[in-house]
Formats: sequence, C-alpha cells, structure tokens
Amino acid sequence: MASTAEHDAMRRALAIAQRGPRGVNPQVGAVLLGRDGSIIAEGWHRGAGTPHAEVDALSKLAPGEARGATAIVTLEPCNHTGRTGPCSEALIAAGVTRVVYAIADPGDHSSGGGTRLRAAGVDVEAGLLADEATALLESWLTVQRLGRPHVTVKWAQSLDGRAAASDGTSQWITGPAARADVHRRRAAADAIVAGTGTVLADDPALTARAEDGTLLPHQPVPVIVGARPVPEDAALRRHPHPFLQYPGDGASGGLAAALEDLRTRGVQRVFVEGGPAVAASFLRERLADELLVYVAPVLLGGDRLALHDIGVTTIGEAKRLAVASVTPLGDDLLYVAHPTPPAAADALRASARVDQPSSEGDE
Amino acid sequence: MASTAEHDAMRRALAIAQRGPRGVNPQVGAVLLGRDGSIIAEGWHRGAGTPHAEVDALSKLAPGEARGATAIVTLEPCNHTGRTGPCSEALIAAGVTRVVYAIADPGDHSSGGGTRLRAAGVDVEAGLLADEATALLESWLTVQRLGRPHVTVKWAQSLDGRAAASDGTSQWITGPAARADVHRRRAAADAIVAGTGTVLADDPALTARAEDGTLLPHQPVPVIVGARPVPEDAALRRHPHPFLQYPGDGASGGLAAALEDLRTRGVQRVFVEGGPAVAASFLRERLADELLVYVAPVLLGGDRLALHDIGVTTIGEAKRLAVASVTPLGDDLLYVAHPTPPAAADALRASARVDQPSSEGDE
Ligand SMILES: NC(=O)c1ccc[n+]([C@@H]2O[C@H](COP(=O)([O-])OP(=O)(O)OC[C@H]3O[C@@H](n4cnc5c(N)ncnc54)[C@H](OP(=O)(O)O)[C@@H]3O)[C@@H](O)[C@H]2O)c1
Ligand SMILES: NC(=O)c1ccc[n+]([C@@H]2O[C@H](COP(=O)([O-])OP(=O)(O)OC[C@H]3O[C@@H](n4cnc5c(N)ncnc54)[C@H](OP(=O)(O)O)[C@@H]3O)[C@@H](O)[C@H]2O)c1
Repeated sequence: MASTAEHDAMRRALAIAQRGPRGVNPQVGAVLLGRDGSIIAEGWHRGAGTPHAEVDALSKLAPGEARGATAIVTLEPCNHTGRTGPCSEALIAAGVTRVVYAIADPGDHSSGGGTRLRAAGVDVEAGLLADEATALLESWLTVQRLGRPHVTVKWAQSLDGRAAASDGTSQWITGPAARADVHRRRAAADAIVAGTGTVLADDPALTARAEDGTLLPHQPVPVIVGARPVPEDAALRRHPHPFLQYPGDGASGGLAAALEDLRTRGVQRVFVEGGPAVAASFLRERLADELLVYVAPVLLGGDRLALHDIGVTTIGEAKRLAVASVTPLGDDLLYVAHPTPPAAADALRASARVDQPSSEGDE
Repeated sequence: MASTAEHDAMRRALAIAQRGPRGVNPQVGAVLLGRDGSIIAEGWHRGAGTPHAEVDALSKLAPGEARGATAIVTLEPCNHTGRTGPCSEALIAAGVTRVVYAIADPGDHSSGGGTRLRAAGVDVEAGLLADEATALLESWLTVQRLGRPHVTVKWAQSLDGRAAASDGTSQWITGPAARADVHRRRAAADAIVAGTGTVLADDPALTARAEDGTLLPHQPVPVIVGARPVPEDAALRRHPHPFLQYPGDGASGGLAAALEDLRTRGVQRVFVEGGPAVAASFLRERLADELLVYVAPVLLGGDRLALHDIGVTTIGEAKRLAVASVTPLGDDLLYVAHPTPPAAADALRASARVDQPSSEGDE
C-alpha cells in the first residue's frame, strides 16, 4: 500500500512529467523520497536522447545519497539499453529500496523493469494513480499499441454523400457549428493531412482557427500527400509551420510509409482532412482509426463524391462502422465512428440482422 | 353555438362518412335533425357520380318532412352543379332552416355553399369538430391543396450515399427494423412507384409485408414508370393488384402526367420506392413532398449511387431539406424531411449561417 507521502509524490511526478515535450518518447516524471518521506530529488524526461526521468532525478544527488530512498515514477522504469542505460539498473546501483510506478511500460524492448527490480530485492508497487498516468500518455500509448500514429479521417458531405455541387462549389455545405467543431478537433492533432487534389482545388490554409478567424494556440503540422508540387502562392505556405510532403503512392511505400515517418518525428495524432481520394485510401488501407463525418441536410446529386472507391466490390465486404455517437451541430449531424475489423463486422451483422424470407433487393 | 344534440349528430356524421370509399371524392356524412333535435335521416357519399351525403339523407324523407330541420354535415355543402346538383340548393328547397358543418370545402368550383345558404336566410354555423373532420379527410384535402397526390420518396443508403456495392449487391444495407418501417409506411399509401430499372434489376414484389413475410391487409397499387416491358415472370405480376405502367418520360408528360392519371383513379398517397433515377426525377421536378432516407452505418464507395442527378449545378442551388425528424431504427437512422422551396431555403440559410472571413473550401 502506498503511503500518503507516496500519493502526493506521484501527483507531483505527474505534474512535472508535463514539462517534457509530447513526442516520440513518453512524458515521464520521477520523484525520490528520503527515508523520512520527504522529497530529496525530482526529474523529468526532456525527449528522445536525453536522460530518463529517474536518471535525471538521481543525477541531482551526491553519490550514496539515494541509498534507502523510494522512487516514485509515472511509468515503469525501463529495462533496456537504448541511447541511455536501463533505469532499473541505475535505481538498483543507487541503492533505491522501493519503487512505486503508475503504469507498465508497453514497449516490447523496454518493459520488464519491474521484474528486474524485484529480482534485485527492491520492493515494487505498480498502479498508483494509473488512470491519471494513462490519460497523460494516451496518445503515446496509442502509438505504441498501433505501431503508428492514431488516424482520424474527417469529411463533410451532403446527405446523399456529395462533397460539392457539379461545378465544384462547396461553400458551404455544413454550417458554422460544424465548421467550428472541425477547427477545435484539428487543434488537438499533431499533423493535418490533405491531398494535392484538395490543395490545388481549394487552396486551404490548413490552420486551426477560432470562430473569429484568429489562429488557435496549437497548430498541427500541415502534411501534403501527392507528387504534384504545391504552388508558390499557396495559402499553405503562410502556415506557421513549414509543411511536409510525401508522395503517398505505392512506389514510396504509400500512406503507411508517410505515417511511419511522421511517427519518427513525434507525431501521435493525425487528422486527415481529405479530399475524397485520400480519405478513401486511408480506409482502403485500413489506416483509419476514427471517422468524423459531418452530414448536412442538403441534397446535391451529381458526381462530386465525398468518398471515392474504398475497395468494396460486393455487399459482404461493406465497411461496417461502430458508431460511437451521432450529434447535432446546428442543422448538421456529426457521426463519430470506428471502422470495424471484418471479423467484428460479421459478428455485428449476425447479432443485428435476421434472415429474410424473400429474395428481393433492398426494398 | 351548437347544441349537445348537434355535437352528437356531428360525431355520428363523421362515423357514417367512413362508410364511403376513400378516393377521388371526399368521404362525407350528413345527419338531419327534426325540430325536437332527434335524428330523422342520415346519409353518406358513396363515391364519384353518386349523390352527396346531404342529398342522400334528404332522399330518405317524404316531401315536406325536412321543413324546419337542421342539417349536420362533415363538409361544407357544395355550391356547384357537377354530376349531382348543388347541395346548398337542395337543402334550401327542402326547407332546412339551420346547417352546421365541420370544415369548409376547399374546392374552387364547389365552395361557397355556406354563403349561398346564408343568402337564402338559412342559419349557418361552421367549424364544429373541425379537427376530427380534417383528420378524416387529410389525404383528400392534401390532394385538393397540391392539385395532385401527395408524394413520398424513399430510399435506403450507406452513410456515403450508395445504394449497392459495385457488383450491384445490396442485401442488406439497412437492418430489419428499417425494412419493417418501410413496409408499414408502404401499407399507408394508395400506390407504390418503381422504375423499370429497379424492376429489371431486383424483381421486387412491391407488396407491403409483415415481419413474418405475410401480406399486410392494405396493399397499395403497384405503379411502374418506364418504357421497358415488365418481364412475363416478374414477381410484380403476382401482386394482389394488377400493376399500372406509365412511360414517365417528357414526351408522355413525364411524372406529372402519371400523377394526374393516378389522381383521377382516386390515388391520394404515392410512395416512390426508387430507384435512384426515378427518385432523382421526382426531386428535380419538385414533385416530392416528403423524403424518407434510411441511412445505414456502412461505407460502400464505388459508383452505385442512391440518388442520381437532381439538377443542382452549383452550391447555391443545393436542395436544402427541412428535417422533421431523425430516428434510430436498429443500427440505422431514418431521416424524415421535406424539400424546402428555394425562397424558404434562402431564409433558412440566412438565419442559420454566418459569413466567414476566409475564402477556402469546406474545411
Ligand atoms: N467534403 C470534404 O470534407 C472535402 C475535404 C477536402 C476536399 N474536398 C474536395 O475534394 C476535391 C479534391 O478531390 P481529389 O480527390 O482530387 O483530392 P485529394 O484526395 O485531396 O487528393 C488526391 C491526390 O492525392 C495524392 N495522393 C497521394 N497518395 C495518395 C493515396 N494513397 N491515395 C489517393 N491519393 C493520393 C494524389 O496526388 P498526385 O497526383 O499529386 O500524386 C491524388 O491525386 C476538391 O474539390 C475539394 O473541394 C472535400
Ligand atoms: N437504395 C434503394 O432504396 C433502392 C431502391 C430501389 C432500387 N435501388 C437500386 O437501383 C438500381 C436501379 O437503378 P435505375 O436507376 O436503373 O432504376 P430506376 O430509377 O428504378 O429506373 C430508371 C428507369 O425508370 C424509367 N423512367 C421513367 N420515367 C422516368 C423519369 N422521369 N426519370 C427517370 N427515370 C424514368 C426509365 O426507364 P425506361 O428506360 O424503361 O423508360 C429509367 O431508365 C437497382 O440496382 C436497385 O437495386 C435501390
């Protein structure tokens, strides 16, 4: 059982963890308590290539000073020699006798620190303020689980699935509440992706803006997929961040290769804003984790579809969605949904549908 | 002020009105009360070419017996000489001294009976149980107002607006709750319309069925639009009613001509079941009063659109919908909506949308 002093120390460790950058490496904080329960050192992780939080804290003490101390860490001490040595070994060597951590390290190579510490006779306790630590590291944990950034694919459409009228005009299909919602969600992402088709057709700024048009504090990095050059006078070139561009085609490793490169740059959340060809490719390649579909109460007809071919040829291959919510935004509806993997979709269908006696069409 | 006896007589008149057929002419009932308030005769209308309710009631009395009587009628007595003489004149000639009716006659030629009666010194009171009479005649009143049958256009689609996968398979996009809802609503219509495209592709039965596949008591008349012949072995030929077929093209007067012919056959409610070309034509020609769109939480991509070209070329011409309700049916959503006339749509937009500072696409 963790003591009150240890609880307080974990809260402190969670707070100082946030001094580190969000990026490829997790935000981690550590607090060292002396035998009397008072704080003797603190540390946090400042990003890839810099000391881990535990080592940062130990570095602030004189040799021998950590003997008999308790280490409070937001993430399980690592057990692998990367750019820094394993933290479990550093804690053992320093004479720390108790380690309390919030959540386990999900990494294949880095986990096992708790076991290593126990084997060396250290008293180990896991799970203190685990929910708070999980919330802090949510994006990073998602990247660990998926092996790539989390991808949200967004589009706006008329009820009949069109993105524009036949002459290409599309201002505005959805209303101001839906558009404001898009900007808020954009601002929560690390990168915003658009195809060259959209860049050339719409010249979007790809900034996250408040309703009065001013820039929101956090701006995701703009990312363009496609080989065609971005025009010299594109609005995109006035974005606060320089844009990245990937070919995105099969020869270059496709969208998966672009996501992998973004991951190595510390991107955890990607917001795909279209257009219809790029959105369809993310779905076809099963790289979409979340869908945001803004549906306006309007009919357009014509051939400007909001979503191109997603590789479904027969009804059994339909991409069934797990709909998390359908929310009114002004006159529009926002669907938040998750593509279900084929097996899960079969189960959904089996539970929700019954056989029909007739052999007619969808009548 | 109507007396209690007159109230009771109007209830009776509404009840016997329903003995007449629903059709080109309204269902009307009449009750004649003697000077002491007791019922001396009843009548109802049995359809086009037969006596109106008031005349039917008068015919049951000996000459002179109606002198000083009160006539209670569910619809304003008519004032025109059609296949029968004007009812207002018949009531005056019979010596009726008071007339109470529920709702006014909306017809251009037939209305004015109340005024004629008053001019002849008859005591006239209008509006008794008007809501009940309006409910009874709702479909017929709609036909009078529109000058044609009321048209509901229904389709089922994936969220991205497709009606089928690219190989044409579509069983099932929507779930059993949505399909049962379609059958219930079908059964409330007088006619069900499908294009030859749908007949040839899907061979639908076009019957209204209960969930166990048995036929519901009321079956709308099947109506096919298109020039191509219905195959000899079509399921449609086993429908309890023989089907009607109209070319539906411009040369034949289009869908408007088909609706006009249906009106003369007493059809008041038309349920258009597709396919995508026919549904689009009803919208394009502004002949759709109500839309039912069943949206399944599924993505299909591809080119099998649920709605073809509706004549919108630029965003300002988008068909804005007044959405009456969005209702979950199993996993699906049902939109019930009404196309708004262009002026109303402008007003809707002006009230709901604000100007935006930027000039980008729908981002
Ligand atoms: N409704 C909405 O929410 C929404 C959002 C954005 C845009 N739009 C509309 O969409 C239209 C543009 O459509 P679009 O289809 O031309 O644009 P797009 O999807 O933005 O861009 C397509 C281009 O992306 C590149 N690309 C790279 N990798 C790709 C991959 N794996 N799969 C597919 N494309 C890849 C290709 O460009 P290269 O040929 O250069 O290699 C391709 O031509 C505009 O009219 C715009 O208004 C609508
Ligand atoms: N999702 C749904 O709710 C739903 C419902 C029904 C059907 N479907 C699907 O729709 C597909 C059939 O599509 P479709 O477009 O060929 O069929 P359709 O809309 O049923 O029929 C089109 C045909 O109707 C005739 N027509 C007559 N007057 C017309 C007018 N004013 N406007 C347009 N057409 C007129 C023409 O036939 P002629 O050439 O013979 O003159 C035309 O080719 C099938 O795959 C079916 O499964 C889907």
